[in-house]
Amino acid sequence: MSAAPIRLVPLPGMPLIGPGDDLCGALAEAAQRAGLELSDGVLVVCQKVVSKQEGRTVRLSGVRPSPRAERIAAAWDKDPRHVEVVLGESARIVREGHGVLICETRHGFVCANAGVDLSNAPDDDTAVLLPSDPDASARRLREELAARGAGPLAVIISDTFGRPWREGLVDQAIGCAGLAPLRDLRGARDLRDRELLVTVNATADQLAAAAGLLMGKDAGIPAVWIEGVAPEGDGSIRETLRDPSLDLFR
Amino acid sequence: MSAAPIRLVPLPGMPLIGPGDDLCGALAEAAQRAGLELSDGVLVVCQKVVSKQEGRTVRLSGVRPSPRAERIAAAWDKDPRHVEVVLGESARIVREGHGVLICETRHGFVCANAGVDLSNAPDDDTAVLLPSDPDASARRLREELAARGAGPLAVIISDTFGRPWREGLVDQAIGCAGLAPLRDLRGARDLRDRELLVTVNATADQLAAAAGLLMGKDAGIPAVWIEGVAPEGDGSIRETLRDPSLDLFR
Repeated sequence: MSAAPIRLVPLPGMPLIGPGDDLCGALAEAAQRAGLELSDGVLVVCQKVVSKQEGRTVRLSGVRPSPRAERIAAAWDKDPRHVEVVLGESARIVREGHGVLICETRHGFVCANAGVDLSNAPDDDTAVLLPSDPDASARRLREELAARGAGPLAVIISDTFGRPWREGLVDQAIGCAGLAPLRDLRGARDLRDRELLVTVNATADQLAAAAGLLMGKDAGIPAVWIEGVAPEGDGSIRETLRDPSLDLFR
Repeated sequence: MSAAPIRLVPLPGMPLIGPGDDLCGALAEAAQRAGLELSDGVLVVCQKVVSKQEGRTVRLSGVRPSPRAERIAAAWDKDPRHVEVVLGESARIVREGHGVLICETRHGFVCANAGVDLSNAPDDDTAVLLPSDPDASARRLREELAARGAGPLAVIISDTFGRPWREGLVDQAIGCAGLAPLRDLRGARDLRDRELLVTVNATADQLAAAAGLLMGKDAGIPAVWIEGVAPEGDGSIRETLRDPSLDLFR
Protein backbone atom coordinates (compact mmCIF):
# COMPACT_ATOMS: atom_id res chain seq x y z
CA MET A 1 0.00 0.00 0.00
CA SER A 2 2.65 2.53 1.03
CA ALA A 3 6.23 2.62 2.30
CA ALA A 4 5.90 6.10 3.81
CA PRO A 5 4.87 6.55 7.44
CA ILE A 6 1.21 6.54 8.40
CA ARG A 7 -0.11 8.98 10.97
CA LEU A 8 -3.26 8.49 13.06
CA VAL A 9 -4.61 11.71 14.52
CA PRO A 10 -7.46 11.77 17.04
CA LEU A 11 -10.22 14.35 16.67
CA PRO A 12 -10.90 15.33 20.28
CA GLY A 13 -13.35 17.80 21.72
CA MET A 14 -16.35 16.72 19.67
CA PRO A 15 -19.71 17.78 21.16
CA LEU A 16 -22.26 15.12 22.12
CA ILE A 17 -24.23 14.39 18.99
CA GLY A 18 -28.02 14.06 18.90
CA PRO A 19 -30.59 13.35 16.18
CA GLY A 20 -30.23 15.68 13.22
CA ASP A 21 -27.18 17.48 14.60
CA ASP A 22 -24.56 18.69 12.15
CA LEU A 23 -22.10 15.81 12.53
CA CYS A 24 -20.16 16.85 9.44
CA GLY A 25 -19.74 20.36 10.83
CA ALA A 26 -18.62 18.99 14.20
CA LEU A 27 -16.06 16.74 12.50
CA ALA A 28 -14.78 19.58 10.32
CA GLU A 29 -14.42 21.88 13.32
CA ALA A 30 -12.64 19.21 15.39
CA ALA A 31 -10.28 18.64 12.48
CA GLN A 32 -9.60 22.35 12.22
CA ARG A 33 -8.87 22.59 15.95
CA ALA A 34 -6.45 19.67 15.56
CA GLY A 35 -4.73 21.59 12.75
CA LEU A 36 -5.72 19.03 10.13
CA GLU A 37 -6.60 19.49 6.52
CA LEU A 38 -8.91 16.60 5.65
CA SER A 39 -7.20 15.86 2.38
CA ASP A 40 -5.51 12.69 1.05
CA GLY A 41 -6.44 10.43 3.89
CA VAL A 42 -9.09 8.35 5.57
CA LEU A 43 -11.53 9.56 8.21
CA VAL A 44 -12.67 6.80 10.54
CA VAL A 45 -15.84 7.68 12.45
CA CYS A 46 -17.19 5.46 15.21
CA GLN A 47 -20.64 4.06 14.61
CA LYS A 48 -22.14 5.48 17.76
CA VAL A 49 -22.04 9.16 16.79
CA VAL A 50 -23.37 8.31 13.35
CA SER A 51 -26.25 6.30 14.79
CA LYS A 52 -27.13 9.02 17.27
CA GLN A 53 -27.07 11.64 14.53
CA GLU A 54 -29.33 9.45 12.39
CA GLY A 55 -31.75 8.89 15.27
CA ARG A 56 -31.03 5.16 15.31
CA THR A 57 -31.95 4.81 18.97
CA VAL A 58 -34.78 3.02 20.75
CA ARG A 59 -36.40 3.92 24.08
CA LEU A 60 -36.38 0.71 26.11
CA SER A 61 -39.39 1.85 28.14
CA GLY A 62 -41.48 1.68 24.98
CA VAL A 63 -40.44 -1.87 23.99
CA ARG A 64 -42.88 -4.82 24.50
CA PRO A 65 -40.69 -7.96 24.62
CA SER A 66 -41.96 -10.96 22.66
CA PRO A 67 -42.18 -14.39 24.34
CA ARG A 68 -38.99 -15.34 22.48
CA ALA A 69 -37.15 -12.32 23.86
CA GLU A 70 -38.48 -13.10 27.35
CA ARG A 71 -37.23 -16.68 27.09
CA ILE A 72 -33.74 -15.70 25.88
CA ALA A 73 -33.47 -12.90 28.44
CA ALA A 74 -34.44 -15.23 31.28
CA ALA A 75 -31.90 -17.85 30.17
CA TRP A 76 -29.02 -15.39 30.09
CA ASP A 77 -30.01 -12.84 32.73
CA LYS A 78 -30.51 -10.04 30.25
CA ASP A 79 -33.03 -7.22 29.91
CA PRO A 80 -35.89 -8.68 27.78
CA ARG A 81 -36.47 -5.28 26.16
CA HIS A 82 -32.82 -5.16 25.08
CA VAL A 83 -33.13 -8.70 23.70
CA GLU A 84 -36.30 -7.70 21.82
CA VAL A 85 -34.44 -4.84 20.14
CA VAL A 86 -31.54 -7.18 19.33
CA LEU A 87 -33.93 -9.69 17.72
CA GLY A 88 -35.46 -6.91 15.66
CA GLU A 89 -32.03 -6.02 14.28
CA SER A 90 -31.05 -9.63 13.57
CA ALA A 91 -31.45 -11.74 10.46
CA ARG A 92 -30.55 -14.78 12.61
CA ILE A 93 -29.01 -15.79 15.90
CA VAL A 94 -25.63 -17.39 15.19
CA ARG A 95 -24.78 -18.54 18.73
CA GLU A 96 -26.34 -18.15 22.13
CA GLY A 97 -24.51 -18.84 25.38
CA HIS A 98 -22.50 -17.52 28.32
CA GLY A 99 -24.79 -14.48 28.42
CA VAL A 100 -23.87 -13.53 24.87
CA LEU A 101 -26.05 -13.39 21.77
CA ILE A 102 -23.99 -13.57 18.60
CA CYS A 103 -26.22 -12.32 15.80
CA GLU A 104 -26.10 -11.80 12.10
CA THR A 105 -27.48 -8.33 11.53
CA ARG A 106 -29.75 -7.41 8.66
CA HIS A 107 -26.63 -5.96 6.97
CA GLY A 108 -24.85 -9.32 7.29
CA PHE A 109 -22.44 -8.42 10.10
CA VAL A 110 -21.88 -11.08 12.73
CA CYS A 111 -21.45 -9.50 16.15
CA ALA A 112 -22.62 -9.53 19.75
CA ASN A 113 -26.18 -8.26 20.32
CA ALA A 114 -26.55 -7.28 16.65
CA GLY A 115 -24.54 -4.18 17.49
CA VAL A 116 -27.26 -2.86 19.83
CA ASP A 117 -25.36 -1.08 22.58
CA LEU A 118 -26.25 0.45 25.91
CA SER A 119 -22.86 2.01 26.70
CA ASN A 120 -22.30 5.64 25.78
CA ALA A 121 -26.03 5.92 25.09
CA PRO A 122 -27.67 9.28 25.78
CA ASP A 123 -29.42 7.92 28.91
CA ASP A 124 -30.28 4.68 30.71
CA ASP A 125 -33.50 4.22 28.75
CA THR A 126 -31.82 4.33 25.34
CA ALA A 127 -30.32 1.61 23.19
CA VAL A 128 -28.20 2.64 20.21
CA LEU A 129 -28.59 0.58 17.02
CA LEU A 130 -26.21 0.32 14.09
CA PRO A 131 -26.90 2.71 11.20
CA SER A 132 -29.40 1.09 8.85
CA ASP A 133 -27.06 1.53 5.86
CA PRO A 134 -23.52 2.31 7.07
CA ASP A 135 -22.15 2.57 3.50
CA ALA A 136 -24.74 5.27 2.84
CA SER A 137 -23.79 7.00 6.11
CA ALA A 138 -20.14 7.01 5.03
CA ARG A 139 -21.06 8.27 1.56
CA ARG A 140 -23.19 11.06 2.98
CA LEU A 141 -20.46 12.23 5.37
CA ARG A 142 -17.90 12.09 2.58
CA GLU A 143 -20.09 14.18 0.29
CA GLU A 144 -20.86 16.71 3.01
CA LEU A 145 -17.17 17.03 3.85
CA ALA A 146 -16.35 17.45 0.15
CA ALA A 147 -18.98 20.20 -0.07
CA ARG A 148 -17.03 21.99 2.65
CA GLY A 149 -13.81 21.73 0.64
CA ALA A 150 -12.34 18.59 2.21
CA GLY A 151 -10.97 15.71 0.17
CA PRO A 152 -9.96 13.68 -1.59
CA LEU A 153 -10.72 11.46 1.34
CA ALA A 154 -12.32 8.17 2.25
CA VAL A 155 -14.73 7.70 5.13
CA ILE A 156 -15.03 4.52 7.20
CA ILE A 157 -17.72 3.89 9.82
CA SER A 158 -16.31 1.57 12.49
CA ASP A 159 -17.56 -0.45 15.42
CA THR A 160 -15.83 -2.63 18.00
CA PHE A 161 -16.47 -6.31 17.39
CA GLY A 162 -15.53 -9.41 19.31
CA ARG A 163 -13.99 -12.33 17.47
CA PRO A 164 -14.27 -16.12 17.74
CA TRP A 165 -11.38 -17.79 19.60
CA ARG A 166 -9.72 -14.55 20.66
CA GLU A 167 -10.42 -12.40 23.67
CA GLY A 168 -10.76 -8.67 23.29
CA LEU A 169 -12.43 -6.31 20.91
CA VAL A 170 -10.98 -4.98 17.67
CA ASP A 171 -12.58 -2.27 15.58
CA GLN A 172 -13.97 -3.31 12.23
CA ALA A 173 -15.33 -1.35 9.32
CA ILE A 174 -19.12 -1.51 8.95
CA GLY A 175 -19.37 1.06 6.17
CA CYS A 176 -17.05 2.83 3.77
CA ALA A 177 -16.97 5.34 0.94
CA GLY A 178 -14.16 6.34 -1.39
CA LEU A 179 -12.09 3.26 -0.62
CA ALA A 180 -11.89 -0.33 -1.81
CA PRO A 181 -12.44 -2.27 1.45
CA LEU A 182 -10.38 -5.21 0.18
CA ARG A 183 -6.99 -5.04 -1.47
CA ASP A 184 -6.67 -8.01 -3.76
CA LEU A 185 -3.08 -9.15 -4.19
CA ARG A 186 -3.98 -12.34 -6.04
CA GLY A 187 -1.84 -12.48 -9.14
CA ALA A 188 0.76 -10.15 -7.61
CA ARG A 189 4.18 -11.59 -6.83
CA ASP A 190 5.92 -12.28 -3.57
CA LEU A 191 9.56 -11.27 -3.00
CA ARG A 192 10.78 -14.33 -4.93
CA ASP A 193 8.40 -13.56 -7.82
CA ARG A 194 6.11 -16.41 -6.82
CA GLU A 195 2.47 -15.71 -7.56
CA LEU A 196 0.37 -14.95 -4.49
CA LEU A 197 -2.71 -17.15 -4.61
CA VAL A 198 -4.89 -16.28 -1.68
CA THR A 199 -3.81 -12.93 -0.34
CA VAL A 200 -6.58 -10.38 -0.05
CA ASN A 201 -5.95 -7.72 2.57
CA ALA A 202 -8.93 -6.32 4.45
CA THR A 203 -7.74 -2.74 4.17
CA ALA A 204 -10.86 -1.11 5.61
CA ASP A 205 -10.76 -3.40 8.65
CA GLN A 206 -7.04 -2.74 9.16
CA LEU A 207 -7.73 1.00 9.07
CA ALA A 208 -10.62 0.63 11.51
CA ALA A 209 -8.47 -1.44 13.88
CA ALA A 210 -5.69 1.13 13.70
CA ALA A 211 -8.11 3.97 14.48
CA GLY A 212 -9.44 1.88 17.36
CA LEU A 213 -6.13 2.39 19.16
CA LEU A 214 -7.27 5.98 19.77
CA MET A 215 -10.99 5.30 20.24
CA GLY A 216 -11.37 3.46 23.57
CA LYS A 217 -14.91 3.66 24.95
CA ASP A 218 -13.61 5.77 27.84
CA ALA A 219 -11.59 8.09 25.59
CA GLY A 220 -14.29 10.29 24.07
CA ILE A 221 -12.62 10.15 20.64
CA PRO A 222 -15.31 9.39 18.04
CA ALA A 223 -13.17 10.03 14.95
CA VAL A 224 -9.59 9.51 13.80
CA TRP A 225 -7.90 10.95 10.74
CA ILE A 226 -5.40 8.67 8.98
CA GLU A 227 -2.70 10.22 6.81
CA GLY A 228 -0.25 8.35 4.61
CA VAL A 229 -2.82 5.94 3.21
CA ALA A 230 -3.97 7.07 -0.19
CA PRO A 231 -7.68 6.26 -0.55
CA GLU A 232 -7.73 3.84 -3.49
CA GLY A 233 -10.71 2.58 -5.43
CA ASP A 234 -14.24 2.50 -4.14
CA GLY A 235 -16.60 -0.15 -2.93
CA SER A 236 -19.15 -1.33 -0.45
CA ILE A 237 -18.39 -2.96 2.87
CA ARG A 238 -20.66 -5.76 1.63
CA GLU A 239 -17.63 -6.98 -0.35
CA THR A 240 -16.08 -8.04 2.96
CA LEU A 241 -19.04 -10.26 3.87
CA ARG A 242 -18.15 -13.82 3.02
CA ASP A 243 -20.38 -15.58 0.53
CA PRO A 244 -22.50 -17.91 2.71
CA SER A 245 -21.85 -20.79 0.32
CA LEU A 246 -18.09 -20.45 0.97
CA ASP A 247 -18.35 -19.82 4.68
CA LEU A 248 -17.10 -22.72 6.78
CA PHE A 249 -18.55 -21.17 9.93
CA ARG A 250 -22.27 -21.31 9.18
CA MET B 1 -4.84 4.68 25.48
CA SER B 2 -3.64 8.02 24.15
CA ALA B 3 -5.03 11.21 22.69
CA ALA B 4 -1.81 12.15 20.91
CA PRO B 5 -1.19 11.09 17.32
CA ILE B 6 0.22 7.66 16.56
CA ARG B 7 2.86 7.21 13.89
CA LEU B 8 3.53 3.97 12.01
CA VAL B 9 6.95 3.89 10.36
CA PRO B 10 8.00 1.09 8.01
CA LEU B 11 11.50 -0.38 8.30
CA PRO B 12 12.45 -0.93 4.68
CA GLY B 13 15.63 -2.30 3.17
CA MET B 14 15.95 -5.32 5.45
CA PRO B 15 18.18 -8.08 4.05
CA LEU B 16 16.70 -11.54 3.45
CA ILE B 17 17.00 -13.38 6.75
CA GLY B 18 18.24 -16.96 7.06
CA PRO B 19 18.76 -19.37 9.98
CA GLY B 20 20.90 -17.89 12.72
CA ASP B 21 21.25 -14.50 11.02
CA ASP B 22 21.45 -11.43 13.22
CA LEU B 23 17.80 -10.35 12.95
CA CYS B 24 18.15 -7.91 15.82
CA GLY B 25 21.12 -6.26 14.13
CA ALA B 26 19.24 -6.04 10.83
CA LEU B 27 16.24 -4.44 12.57
CA ALA B 28 18.46 -1.99 14.45
CA GLU B 29 20.24 -1.00 11.24
CA ALA B 30 16.98 -0.59 9.32
CA ALA B 31 15.66 1.60 12.14
CA GLN B 32 18.81 3.70 12.05
CA ARG B 33 18.53 4.15 8.27
CA ALA B 34 14.92 5.25 8.78
CA GLY B 35 16.13 7.82 11.32
CA LEU B 36 14.33 6.11 14.19
CA GLU B 37 15.32 5.79 17.78
CA LEU B 38 13.62 2.61 19.02
CA SER B 39 12.44 4.15 22.25
CA ASP B 40 8.94 4.55 23.74
CA GLY B 41 7.09 2.58 21.15
CA VAL B 42 6.16 -0.81 19.79
CA LEU B 43 8.08 -2.77 17.20
CA VAL B 44 5.89 -5.11 15.17
CA VAL B 45 7.86 -7.82 13.36
CA CYS B 46 6.23 -10.16 10.89
CA GLN B 47 6.36 -13.82 11.77
CA LYS B 48 8.09 -14.88 8.60
CA VAL B 49 11.47 -13.26 9.24
CA VAL B 50 11.41 -14.53 12.82
CA SER B 51 10.64 -18.08 11.71
CA LYS B 52 13.35 -18.01 9.06
CA GLN B 53 15.87 -16.70 11.56
CA GLU B 54 14.90 -19.46 14.00
CA GLY B 55 15.19 -22.14 11.32
CA ARG B 56 11.47 -22.95 11.55
CA THR B 57 11.33 -24.24 7.97
CA VAL B 58 10.71 -27.68 6.51
CA ARG B 59 11.99 -29.08 3.20
CA LEU B 60 8.94 -30.48 1.45
CA SER B 61 11.07 -32.98 -0.52
CA GLY B 62 11.94 -34.71 2.74
CA VAL B 63 8.33 -35.06 3.96
CA ARG B 64 6.57 -38.48 3.84
CA PRO B 65 2.82 -37.76 3.88
CA SER B 66 0.70 -39.93 6.14
CA PRO B 67 -2.44 -41.62 4.76
CA ARG B 68 -4.49 -38.94 6.52
CA ALA B 69 -2.54 -36.17 4.80
CA GLU B 70 -2.92 -37.98 1.46
CA ARG B 71 -6.69 -38.22 1.96
CA ILE B 72 -7.10 -34.55 2.90
CA ALA B 73 -4.80 -33.40 0.11
CA ALA B 74 -6.71 -35.45 -2.48
CA ALA B 75 -10.05 -34.06 -1.29
CA TRP B 76 -8.95 -30.44 -1.57
CA ASP B 77 -6.36 -30.56 -4.35
CA LYS B 78 -3.46 -29.70 -2.09
CA ASP B 79 0.15 -30.86 -1.86
CA PRO B 80 0.07 -33.86 0.53
CA ARG B 81 3.49 -32.95 1.88
CA HIS B 82 2.21 -29.47 2.77
CA VAL B 83 -0.83 -31.04 4.46
CA GLU B 84 1.45 -33.39 6.41
CA VAL B 85 3.43 -30.42 7.73
CA VAL B 86 0.16 -28.63 8.59
CA LEU B 87 -1.09 -31.67 10.53
CA GLY B 88 2.20 -31.80 12.42
CA GLU B 89 1.71 -28.20 13.54
CA SER B 90 -1.94 -28.67 14.49
CA ALA B 91 -3.54 -29.60 17.79
CA ARG B 92 -6.79 -30.17 15.87
CA ILE B 93 -8.53 -29.42 12.59
CA VAL B 94 -11.31 -26.90 13.26
CA ARG B 95 -12.87 -26.86 9.79
CA GLU B 96 -12.10 -28.43 6.44
CA GLY B 97 -13.65 -27.29 3.18
CA HIS B 98 -13.39 -25.17 0.03
CA GLY B 99 -9.68 -26.07 -0.20
CA VAL B 100 -9.00 -24.56 3.20
CA LEU B 101 -7.84 -26.24 6.39
CA ILE B 102 -8.65 -24.18 9.45
CA CYS B 103 -6.46 -25.50 12.24
CA GLU B 104 -5.83 -24.87 15.88
CA THR B 105 -2.07 -24.71 16.22
CA ARG B 106 -0.16 -26.20 19.14
CA HIS B 107 0.01 -22.65 20.54
CA GLY B 108 -3.80 -22.34 20.39
CA PHE B 109 -4.09 -20.01 17.39
CA VAL B 110 -6.90 -20.78 14.97
CA CYS B 111 -5.80 -20.04 11.40
CA ALA B 112 -5.55 -21.42 7.89
CA ASN B 113 -3.01 -24.22 7.40
CA ALA B 114 -1.77 -23.87 11.01
CA GLY B 115 0.23 -20.89 9.79
CA VAL B 116 2.39 -23.06 7.50
CA ASP B 117 3.10 -20.84 4.52
CA LEU B 118 4.68 -21.32 1.12
CA SER B 119 4.70 -17.64 0.04
CA ASN B 120 7.84 -15.62 0.63
CA ALA B 121 9.63 -18.88 1.49
CA PRO B 122 13.33 -19.10 0.59
CA ASP B 123 12.61 -21.51 -2.31
CA ASP B 124 9.88 -23.72 -3.79
CA ASP B 125 10.86 -26.68 -1.62
CA THR B 126 10.48 -24.82 1.66
CA ALA B 127 7.50 -24.35 3.95
CA VAL B 128 7.77 -21.76 6.72
CA LEU B 129 6.22 -22.66 10.08
CA LEU B 130 5.19 -20.35 12.89
CA PRO B 131 7.81 -19.79 15.61
CA SER B 132 7.46 -22.53 18.21
CA ASP B 133 7.10 -19.96 21.03
CA PRO B 134 6.33 -16.53 19.58
CA ASP B 135 6.20 -14.88 23.02
CA ALA B 136 9.75 -16.10 23.61
CA SER B 137 10.77 -14.83 20.15
CA ALA B 138 9.39 -11.41 21.04
CA ARG B 139 11.09 -11.47 24.43
CA ARG B 140 14.42 -12.42 22.91
CA LEU B 141 14.26 -9.66 20.28
CA ARG B 142 13.25 -7.15 22.92
CA GLU B 143 16.19 -8.14 25.15
CA GLU B 144 18.66 -8.07 22.27
CA LEU B 145 17.43 -4.62 21.22
CA ALA B 146 17.68 -3.41 24.83
CA ALA B 147 21.25 -4.70 24.98
CA ARG B 148 21.98 -2.44 22.01
CA GLY B 149 20.56 0.57 23.86
CA ALA B 150 17.01 0.53 22.46
CA GLY B 151 13.93 0.82 24.65
CA PRO B 152 11.77 1.10 26.52
CA LEU B 153 9.87 -0.71 23.83
CA ALA B 154 7.46 -3.56 23.29
CA VAL B 155 7.83 -6.19 20.59
CA ILE B 156 4.93 -7.89 18.81
CA ILE B 157 5.29 -10.82 16.40
CA SER B 158 2.45 -10.66 13.85
CA ASP B 159 0.95 -12.86 11.19
CA THR B 160 -1.86 -12.34 8.69
CA PHE B 161 -4.94 -14.34 9.64
CA GLY B 162 -8.27 -14.87 7.94
CA ARG B 163 -11.47 -14.44 9.93
CA PRO B 164 -14.82 -16.22 9.98
CA TRP B 165 -17.62 -14.39 8.11
CA ARG B 166 -15.37 -11.68 6.71
CA GLU B 167 -13.28 -11.72 3.56
CA GLY B 168 -9.71 -10.53 3.65
CA LEU B 169 -6.75 -10.92 5.92
CA VAL B 170 -5.95 -8.80 8.94
CA ASP B 171 -2.70 -9.04 10.89
CA GLN B 172 -2.94 -10.43 14.39
CA ALA B 173 -0.43 -10.65 17.21
CA ILE B 174 0.97 -14.15 17.78
CA GLY B 175 3.59 -13.14 20.36
CA CYS B 176 4.40 -10.12 22.47
CA ALA B 177 6.81 -8.83 25.08
CA GLY B 178 6.73 -5.68 27.16
CA LEU B 179 3.04 -5.06 26.54
CA ALA B 180 -0.27 -6.19 28.00
CA PRO B 181 -1.99 -7.71 24.96
CA LEU B 182 -5.44 -6.90 26.34
CA ARG B 183 -6.54 -3.58 27.79
CA ASP B 184 -9.28 -4.29 30.30
CA LEU B 185 -11.72 -1.42 30.61
CA ARG B 186 -14.21 -3.32 32.78
CA GLY B 187 -15.02 -1.16 35.76
CA ALA B 188 -14.00 2.00 33.89
CA ARG B 189 -16.73 4.50 33.06
CA ASP B 190 -18.22 5.55 29.77
CA LEU B 191 -18.77 9.21 28.93
CA ARG B 192 -21.96 9.28 31.02
CA ASP B 193 -20.15 7.68 33.97
CA ARG B 194 -21.92 4.38 33.34
CA GLU B 195 -19.76 1.37 34.22
CA LEU B 196 -18.40 -0.51 31.20
CA LEU B 197 -19.20 -4.18 31.66
CA VAL B 198 -17.66 -6.08 28.81
CA THR B 199 -15.10 -3.89 27.13
CA VAL B 200 -11.67 -5.44 26.79
CA ASN B 201 -9.63 -4.03 23.94
CA ALA B 202 -7.27 -6.36 22.10
CA THR B 203 -4.45 -3.83 22.02
CA ALA B 204 -1.79 -6.17 20.64
CA ASP B 205 -4.10 -7.23 17.79
CA GLN B 206 -5.01 -3.61 17.02
CA LEU B 207 -1.30 -2.75 16.85
CA ALA B 208 -0.61 -5.75 14.61
CA ALA B 209 -3.50 -4.80 12.30
CA ALA B 210 -2.26 -1.22 12.11
CA ALA B 211 1.27 -2.38 11.23
CA GLY B 212 -0.26 -4.66 8.61
CA LEU B 213 -1.22 -1.58 6.59
CA LEU B 214 2.48 -1.24 5.75
CA MET B 215 3.31 -4.95 5.54
CA GLY B 216 1.60 -6.31 2.40
CA LYS B 217 3.13 -9.58 1.21
CA ASP B 218 4.40 -7.79 -1.88
CA ALA B 219 5.84 -4.84 0.04
CA GLY B 220 9.01 -6.32 1.51
CA ILE B 221 8.40 -4.56 4.83
CA PRO B 222 8.92 -7.09 7.62
CA ALA B 223 8.83 -4.64 10.52
CA VAL B 224 6.97 -1.49 11.53
CA TRP B 225 7.78 0.88 14.37
CA ILE B 226 4.79 2.41 16.17
CA GLU B 227 5.25 5.68 18.06
CA GLY B 228 2.68 7.36 20.27
CA VAL B 229 1.56 4.17 21.99
CA ALA B 230 3.25 3.85 25.35
CA PRO B 231 4.01 0.18 25.98
CA GLU B 232 1.98 -0.59 29.10
CA GLY B 233 2.12 -3.65 31.30
CA ASP B 234 3.40 -7.02 30.22
CA GLY B 235 1.85 -10.34 29.37
CA SER B 236 1.64 -13.35 27.11
CA ILE B 237 -0.32 -13.55 23.92
CA ARG B 238 -1.91 -16.63 25.50
CA GLU B 239 -4.13 -14.19 27.41
CA THR B 240 -5.88 -13.45 24.10
CA LEU B 241 -6.79 -17.11 23.56
CA ARG B 242 -10.37 -17.63 24.65
CA ASP B 243 -10.94 -20.17 27.39
CA PRO B 244 -12.35 -23.22 25.53
CA SER B 245 -15.15 -23.56 28.10
CA LEU B 246 -16.34 -20.05 27.23
CA ASP B 247 -15.86 -20.33 23.49
CA LEU B 248 -19.14 -20.49 21.57
CA PHE B 249 -17.31 -21.47 18.39
CA ARG B 250 -15.91 -24.90 19.35
